[in-house]
Amino acid sequence: MSSRIEVGVLGATGMVGQNFARLLADHPWFKLTWVGASARSAGKKYGEATSWRLDGVMPESVANLTVSECKPGNAPKLVFSSMDADAATEIEQAFAEAGHIVVSNSKNFRMESDVPLLVPEVNADHLALIRVQQARRGWKGGIITNPNCVAVPLAMALAPFKKYGITKFITTSMQAVSGAGYPGVASMDILGNVIPYIGGEEPKVEEEPLKILGDLRGDHVVDLNAKVSAHCNRVAVVDGHTLTVSVELTEKPSFEQLLSDIENFRGLPQERKLPSAPPVPLVYMTENNRPQPRRDGPRDGGMTVFMGRLRPCSIFDWKFVCLGHNTIRGAAGAAVLNAELMQSEGLL
Amino acid sequence: MSSRIEVGVLGATGMVGQNFARLLADHPWFKLTWVGASARSAGKKYGEATSWRLDGVMPESVANLTVSECKPGNAPKLVFSSMDADAATEIEQAFAEAGHIVVSNSKNFRMESDVPLLVPEVNADHLALIRVQQARRGWKGGIITNPNCVAVPLAMALAPFKKYGITKFITTSMQAVSGAGYPGVASMDILGNVIPYIGGEEPKVEEEPLKILGDLRGDHVVDLNAKVSAHCNRVAVVDGHTLTVSVELTEKPSFEQLLSDIENFRGLPQERKLPSAPPVPLVYMTENNRPQPRRDGPRDGGMTVFMGRLRPCSIFDWKFVCLGHNTIRGAAGAAVLNAELMQSEGLL
Amino acid sequence: MSSRIEVGVLGATGMVGQNFARLLADHPWFKLTWVGASARSAGKKYGEATSWRLDGVMPESVANLTVSECKPGNAPKLVFSSMDADAATEIEQAFAEAGHIVVSNSKNFRMESDVPLLVPEVNADHLALIRVQQARRGWKGGIITNPNCVAVPLAMALAPFKKYGITKFITTSMQAVSGAGYPGVASMDILGNVIPYIGGEEPKVEEEPLKILGDLRGDHVVDLNAKVSAHCNRVAVVDGHTLTVSVELTEKPSFEQLLSDIENFRGLPQERKLPSAPPVPLVYMTENNRPQPRRDGPRDGGMTVFMGRLRPCSIFDWKFVCLGHNTIRGAAGAAVLNAELMQSEGLL
Amino acid sequence: MSSRIEVGVLGATGMVGQNFARLLADHPWFKLTWVGASARSAGKKYGEATSWRLDGVMPESVANLTVSECKPGNAPKLVFSSMDADAATEIEQAFAEAGHIVVSNSKNFRMESDVPLLVPEVNADHLALIRVQQARRGWKGGIITNPNCVAVPLAMALAPFKKYGITKFITTSMQAVSGAGYPGVASMDILGNVIPYIGGEEPKVEEEPLKILGDLRGDHVVDLNAKVSAHCNRVAVVDGHTLTVSVELTEKPSFEQLLSDIENFRGLPQERKLPSAPPVPLVYMTENNRPQPRRDGPRDGGMTVFMGRLRPCSIFDWKFVCLGHNTIRGAAGAAVLNAELMQSEGLL
Repeated sequence: MSSRIEVGVLGATGMVGQNFARLLADHPWFKLTWVGASARSAGKKYGEATSWRLDGVMPESVANLTVSECKPGNAPKLVFSSMDADAATEIEQAFAEAGHIVVSNSKNFRMESDVPLLVPEVNADHLALIRVQQARRGWKGGIITNPNCVAVPLAMALAPFKKYGITKFITTSMQAVSGAGYPGVASMDILGNVIPYIGGEEPKVEEEPLKILGDLRGDHVVDLNAKVSAHCNRVAVVDGHTLTVSVELTEKPSFEQLLSDIENFRGLPQERKLPSAPPVPLVYMTENNRPQPRRDGPRDGGMTVFMGRLRPCSIFDWKFVCLGHNTIRGAAGAAVLNAELMQSEGLL
Repeated sequence: MSSRIEVGVLGATGMVGQNFARLLADHPWFKLTWVGASARSAGKKYGEATSWRLDGVMPESVANLTVSECKPGNAPKLVFSSMDADAATEIEQAFAEAGHIVVSNSKNFRMESDVPLLVPEVNADHLALIRVQQARRGWKGGIITNPNCVAVPLAMALAPFKKYGITKFITTSMQAVSGAGYPGVASMDILGNVIPYIGGEEPKVEEEPLKILGDLRGDHVVDLNAKVSAHCNRVAVVDGHTLTVSVELTEKPSFEQLLSDIENFRGLPQERKLPSAPPVPLVYMTENNRPQPRRDGPRDGGMTVFMGRLRPCSIFDWKFVCLGHNTIRGAAGAAVLNAELMQSEGLL
Repeated sequence: MSSRIEVGVLGATGMVGQNFARLLADHPWFKLTWVGASARSAGKKYGEATSWRLDGVMPESVANLTVSECKPGNAPKLVFSSMDADAATEIEQAFAEAGHIVVSNSKNFRMESDVPLLVPEVNADHLALIRVQQARRGWKGGIITNPNCVAVPLAMALAPFKKYGITKFITTSMQAVSGAGYPGVASMDILGNVIPYIGGEEPKVEEEPLKILGDLRGDHVVDLNAKVSAHCNRVAVVDGHTLTVSVELTEKPSFEQLLSDIENFRGLPQERKLPSAPPVPLVYMTENNRPQPRRDGPRDGGMTVFMGRLRPCSIFDWKFVCLGHNTIRGAAGAAVLNAELMQSEGLL
Repeated sequence: MSSRIEVGVLGATGMVGQNFARLLADHPWFKLTWVGASARSAGKKYGEATSWRLDGVMPESVANLTVSECKPGNAPKLVFSSMDADAATEIEQAFAEAGHIVVSNSKNFRMESDVPLLVPEVNADHLALIRVQQARRGWKGGIITNPNCVAVPLAMALAPFKKYGITKFITTSMQAVSGAGYPGVASMDILGNVIPYIGGEEPKVEEEPLKILGDLRGDHVVDLNAKVSAHCNRVAVVDGHTLTVSVELTEKPSFEQLLSDIENFRGLPQERKLPSAPPVPLVYMTENNRPQPRRDGPRDGGMTVFMGRLRPCSIFDWKFVCLGHNTIRGAAGAAVLNAELMQSEGLL
């Protein structure tokens, strides 16, 4: 236990911060010893400063941590960030300048050319951008990011198609309410309802997968050259984003080829057996009515992306359904896996 | 009152049949005097034979009708049909042969070349196929059909685009549970969940709009020459199907032109002020999070199709959201409007 | 139209205020001409100042009213109040002093001894307290209140039992989210869940029915001498509060007597055919699984209270289920009916 | 592993049977080797005969078992039963006669005077009835039962009150849909709704706790001498029954005494550290809005009963909220714990 790496969380009292606390409470490599939040919470016990919104109860080991202000100072070298977008730029930058490794779930730096936007099974090599970032910005630390909660399952599900030349994809998301934080979506808005809009979501879904699926060329990533169109919707689901996807390819693999590519898809996290890595990152379900967010989302600790219903598309080449747990694989769990990847690379 | 046209309902005890009963209970032109159901129910009062599943209670005027078997005999000339697919072919045909006008919500005859698949605002002229049908089949009566509950709002929403040359459209549906009848979708399957599959639905959604939007050429309809791809999903909504749509056009109208076309879209039902016609068949909502099934679906008696979020699509030309009430505009209400159209044409 | 009485609404932009706007938009006796809200909204059009949260869309006639500050001045004599509790005392008092009749849904004055807490079918005679109020407080106007949204159906359902001597009743409520206003209950809290607590609710449910069912004695009401215990819960329902009730009586009527008392229960609103009065205030449903909030709550404009499952209680005498629409009969609709009662009494 | 006790499941393909399969797939003491179902399923692999309805997927170890008919023959000595009520009497009796220990979740034998109705933390001594049963009926085996899914948390929550003399209790349940099996409750019935009735439930809730909390006297149990009244409701929750309870006591303990009794409540399962025993059987939550079924029900494997909001009742003495996971602690998990108790007593 004493050899675990001390870590901190920026924005620890919010919903994503609480997910960090839960995932890190029993982590074999990392030990959560520092929680940062607003000046208003600083000095209180985490258990007092935080209204626990996740299912179950707050881990006891976290409840007794004293909340610090989000300033570098005595935070551990490795900090996870779930800062709100309006504060993340300044604070994450301050930490990176001060030598911290900021593993961030915030959107602010995702699309910067020298910031890795990582899905470890897909583009672990993009992590090399951290050197570019340090060189260019003069930082001793750095910032690495994970993608938006829809972009993660979308990029992962499309990864096996990449070698056939992805040229276009259209997606419609049916997103869980937990993605909006707390209090987030009002129950008056979503009970027995669909909200066909999520502010700021579609641009992220249309941009981020192209960077994730892009190729590292020297000091930057050449985005995947594909057209993307997204329709984002909120549905009455607690956790788990479900996506329908139609995709056009340059080459024309058979169904069997594609299915094999999907089922055999693995990455560094699996190879290195990283603690948060699911045994199989893409699980293809053969039942025609799966995957489903409530039944499948939480499996394997929420880190697996599920696919189903792969079938020809009469307009593009293939269409399918995919599903990812938005607060785990699409947020806190993604960041933890990113940190595990860095550790396995000797970067911490 | 005495001058109202007597009508019957085939399959009156099911969910769609109950919707017919509700819509016809106070209809200004039609008087429900005959209800047909299975031999098991025949002879009972409708109120005894039927477990009322709709909100509210059974209209009293209907409760006292005696259920008949689904045989022509003494049924009124005009009968609405909500027969199950496995029985509809034989029974609807028997009624048509016997001189009845069968206004059917069943899928069985929809794609027959001499059967009108009507959305009165879109293709009222297809009603002329009834003459072809009678000539070809030697029927004194005839069968006219309304489309599937997703095809209706989809075809209506696309109707204003038709003049610009629709070449492709992709849609993802988020469909209400009422579309599956009763008991239909198990609560264990849909509470807090999405089911990414509805048996037999996608082929209907991909075929029917092409016939609806097609052109009558002599004795048949030339389908719209467009490619369609559909992803159908069930969500935890009681009534109202929400669709995302991306569409490619030959011509390139401006946003203003399209919006004007949508907002000014009217048809014969509006011109003739048919009793079930909504004042405006396509209502475009400018709020970015509308339409919504729970808040908008029931407006105007459930006969309006709502659109929103019309915006450029980075792959095709335009994308938008649309919504229709599946058990009204997508089922019983559609059939009633079809009958009203026929009456206004002097065909009853 | 010109003879309709001009009315205003205090706190018009909130959820209850919006319900007032909807109910008053087409009222045969009242004409909504004045809407009051916070200083921040004052001067704007109601349509701009208000985010419409109810199903459907804002009535056009209301959208164009200019919002005023909540000060007496040029408001109409009759004002409905849906002020928040923290502002209601001061503002309602200011209006009453200035000669306005304040028909309030706010809780602040409900339990004052000289303020009528009205359910017009149950205790219309309590309206006489308005004279006591004016005499004692020196007001030219006055304040009359309607009860809490659980207390209304509870008191109405118990009213027919009163003549048999109610000595104890225990109730458990399953309350809709609309009762918490907007944004109110977070979807993360209620999807697939029950919240066994509603702040401040149980004391109201335990106190208010005793005043409603009490007897006017000169200048005050002698409360019903019964013990009450309430358990209040929030469930995933949009509108409609469902209550289970067990009640002990001094006398021992038969089931048939009680059922007859319930079914024949009527009040002044029915006798005088007040515009918002339901034809039958207590509707007893004989199906063993009714009433249900989604299916029954909205019937008759939301003004009916439904009962069902009357059966012996092995501890007290009788137990049953009852249901009321919380935002209509339990809030705005209750206040409108109170104003109609006052008008029918010549008090406006 | 080889020393694990072989067990079977009667009615293995239904919902409770699936829960048995899930709980037994990795059990440290028991090894599921035999699954019984209807003649129609017999001979098939369990994985083929069963439509898996639980969240996640079927355990692989179970999928390959071959389904047998529900006849004694070569079933293991210990069988769990989740037979439907209409078949349970005959089949369970046949197994008991043939020397099997039938640990049953079915209701059929629960109230027989010589059949233990067990909650191991509450009345483990009632297990002695198995001797009476064997003597009286001439069975080599026997039947032991667990209570109804509402009776379990109710009896457990009341157990600490027993020493103060329980004389009356009233409860209202808000029950999850999983209690009705599959397909069970239609989504049309429960979405955004409450159903104030569950067929056959209230009598069980009123009877079973009295036997559970009763005292073993020689060859039978003397029921607790208390009056019970229950109101049972279905709500839109997947798993977890929430109950409000008001209870009258002969003695008058203080809040502190009661709270201490609740928090220190333990039983044989805890003492003996039975594999399915929760560390603390009654967890009292101090937050005023807890417990909640979605957030708390699944904790500790679904075997804990949660309580909250203990406060004085103005009619009886105390009132509170309690919660149990209906398919685990209220069904399959209860039976597994019963079998563990028997094993720890040397009865297997």
